[in-house]
Amino acid sequence: MFESVLIANRGEIAVRIARTCREMGLRTVAVYSTVDRDSAVVRLADEAVQIGPGPSRRSYLSAPAIIEAARRTGADAIHPGYGFLSEDPDFAEICEADGITFIGPPPAVMAALGDKARTRGIMAGLGLPVLPGTTDAVESAAHARAVAEEIGFPLIIKAVAGGGGRGVRVVRDPASFLGEFAAARAEAQLLFGDNRVYIERYLESARHVEVQVLTDRYGNGIHLGERDCSVQRRHQKLIEESPAPGLPQHMVDRMTAAAVTGALGVGYVGAGTFEFLVGGGDDFHLMEVNCRLQVEHPVSELVTGVDLVRQQILVAAGERLALTQADVTPRGTAIECRLNVEDPARGFVPTPGELTRFDLPAGPFVRVDTHGYAGYRVPADYDSLLAKVVVWAPDRTQALARMARALDECAVEGPGVATTRDFLRSTLDHPLFRAAKHDTSLVDTMLTGLQPDTTETPGRH
Amino acid sequence: MFESVLIANRGEIAVRIARTCREMGLRTVAVYSTVDRDSAVVRLADEAVQIGPGPSRRSYLSAPAIIEAARRTGADAIHPGYGFLSEDPDFAEICEADGITFIGPPPAVMAALGDKARTRGIMAGLGLPVLPGTTDAVESAAHARAVAEEIGFPLIIKAVAGGGGRGVRVVRDPASFLGEFAAARAEAQLLFGDNRVYIERYLESARHVEVQVLTDRYGNGIHLGERDCSVQRRHQKLIEESPAPGLPQHMVDRMTAAAVTGALGVGYVGAGTFEFLVGGGDDFHLMEVNCRLQVEHPVSELVTGVDLVRQQILVAAGERLALTQADVTPRGTAIECRLNVEDPARGFVPTPGELTRFDLPAGPFVRVDTHGYAGYRVPADYDSLLAKVVVWAPDRTQALARMARALDECAVEGPGVATTRDFLRSTLDHPLFRAAKHDTSLVDTMLTGLQPDTTETPGRH
Repeated sequence: MFESVLIANRGEIAVRIARTCREMGLRTVAVYSTVDRDSAVVRLADEAVQIGPGPSRRSYLSAPAIIEAARRTGADAIHPGYGFLSEDPDFAEICEADGITFIGPPPAVMAALGDKARTRGIMAGLGLPVLPGTTDAVESAAHARAVAEEIGFPLIIKAVAGGGGRGVRVVRDPASFLGEFAAARAEAQLLFGDNRVYIERYLESARHVEVQVLTDRYGNGIHLGERDCSVQRRHQKLIEESPAPGLPQHMVDRMTAAAVTGALGVGYVGAGTFEFLVGGGDDFHLMEVNCRLQVEHPVSELVTGVDLVRQQILVAAGERLALTQADVTPRGTAIECRLNVEDPARGFVPTPGELTRFDLPAGPFVRVDTHGYAGYRVPADYDSLLAKVVVWAPDRTQALARMARALDECAVEGPGVATTRDFLRSTLDHPLFRAAKHDTSLVDTMLTGLQPDTTETPGRH
Repeated sequence: MFESVLIANRGEIAVRIARTCREMGLRTVAVYSTVDRDSAVVRLADEAVQIGPGPSRRSYLSAPAIIEAARRTGADAIHPGYGFLSEDPDFAEICEADGITFIGPPPAVMAALGDKARTRGIMAGLGLPVLPGTTDAVESAAHARAVAEEIGFPLIIKAVAGGGGRGVRVVRDPASFLGEFAAARAEAQLLFGDNRVYIERYLESARHVEVQVLTDRYGNGIHLGERDCSVQRRHQKLIEESPAPGLPQHMVDRMTAAAVTGALGVGYVGAGTFEFLVGGGDDFHLMEVNCRLQVEHPVSELVTGVDLVRQQILVAAGERLALTQADVTPRGTAIECRLNVEDPARGFVPTPGELTRFDLPAGPFVRVDTHGYAGYRVPADYDSLLAKVVVWAPDRTQALARMARALDECAVEGPGVATTRDFLRSTLDHPLFRAAKHDTSLVDTMLTGLQPDTTETPGRH
């Protein structure tokens, strides 16, 4: 087992990882940018190293700065969290070359699954259902037009190097297709330094359901059930839950089995997520595979009782998976709400600033993961996720009531600071959501009539 | 179902009850004494009524003041929490007479079980094992001496009206027996206004293990497993856990079955606790039955997933128990530590005062129940329980590590304020506790060599 783990991330996930490391008796090293020096993880970790200025490229995305911090502090493993370098196979390679264990899947697997078009081909080859579309980048306008004609509209153009809902464009009108294609390529270049895009049929009114898998180096793999993440704004998740409500058990069984097959087939090691789209009927289709911890992993933890970060660390240290599928006995329903520092009334514009009041819910079956505290100044440099409010209950109805209670207890205030609390609260009360008849269009529907939604979300997970 | 519940209590338990009421859609009425006006429940409840000055007799123990508050606010049920009026059958009678539901067992059952000597007789009649001793009050010195000779030493003198570890005296030396008997009667009179005492054999090195039961008006009853509460100082619990570690399953099975038999046999309705002493070998003996929610109920909640306050309310409203024994599937281990505002270095003297810093743990599988917050002033008028830190994990080893992490995250400070955090932390690390080889003498053993323990604990639950 490792002695010391460097946490190459910030915000709530850095805090969450530090907690499990401490419980495992591992020394923790936090890294932080100059604007994050007051983050809770800096106090929580055994050691904290400043790695650069606010802009991510010069701190949390700087492999040399992070490797140097690991060397200086003698960290023998790096947990990358989500976002930043968590899905960068080059970073994983550098770690390994330096004798530092990267807590994540093997670099070659990350590279294959990081190419979202190639993933479709690999997984289709393993028997997983994928939507009609390309399994390679579409380079020319002529090729794109031919593909579009074959697939039909609506379709979606996605960045090969994207994922997590970034760099995607839905096209409903053939007339605008080539313009959108060009724009998608330009955007992909801007966001990912890689202009390659691929094309897929777009499902209107689909649900986003994903499966958590856990595998070791020895070919053992299990799933930890599914999560429904259909409450999204601009492809960014706002509310997640487990299990997916209203899904027939035979579909869940096929989906979870497919995810384990896919993970073992590709040599996956660690915790990963297979994201599916569920249309009408009994069909589901793979969207992408995420090679890291998800923001919404706590709902799976609360339902299964499994600490996913602990499992990631054990597997990365070369241990065999101690859990079999029979050991995973899901119980009840868990729901997570992402409390963002954004103003829904102004198109969800981020509202960083000092938190003069920071009351978060507690008590029976409520979990809060956050890096904030009263007096904390939310920096403007990063995404606006401030806290994850997660509840558990024996059934969904009670879980919804508990979440309503928990959100009512939230009081986060500061000059110029707004949060998504009330928006989350009204989403909970939406009849479609309550009845679990919602799909990924729910939030758009709710926002119709509100002020235009013009800001770009920096989310990425 | 009720529309509105008055919470006839204060502190963390008032907050905890308010949370479940809110989740059930019930309007909540808090009551508070003048020194409690800044307590968290006052803000959390839908309505709050000041019922008198600080001294409990004039506020939280004043049935007229509480009934008047219920009438004025239209509350149709009263949850008494623990302590104060929670085990007062007269108060329950007054509620019923006023058309207000008392959330607890029927007054006659409370009266019978409130007499701790009589309880022994009733439960022995139902086949539950009790220690050798009297099933009636021992009134005269001559009677007492005869009983003592029959039982032998060590023995324990307990107040008939006591319970929860108050008003008990262990006598090891026959020479001091009559003096202790007289002192016990005087103390019982002082504490409970009732000088009757009874005598029982005293078990050295026993463990305190209790069973949570839940019954309805229709003769249905289940248990929610057992709790080990052997970490006690002066008969006051400090650390509790579920399940009881190291107990053979056949003993647990017999003990839980005995508790359900006892509860149904006596016509118990609601949530109750059967407290047993486990000596060496396979024997266990009933100590007492508590007719209310226990402080340590969260460990059972985390292991079973059952919200006990919710079940109390449903049963009190006349509903049938929706849970069968087969629905209760305990999972993992939960541990609770009571964070008291006391100074262990000065004999655990209470240290009320203003909390200038109030950082409590959070994150995966950690629950905190508290009424405190940064800036809260702990009044000197009540017991010193400030927060309950509760953790869950798949096994006891992981739960201990998680609790250590959670306690390390606690930072409660203020001028003149001390807490039991470090004492709890070192108890967790004690080899006997880690190995689950401790008994109720553990804390005394730890305190030997520390400053003499001279204060009287006002605890009562």
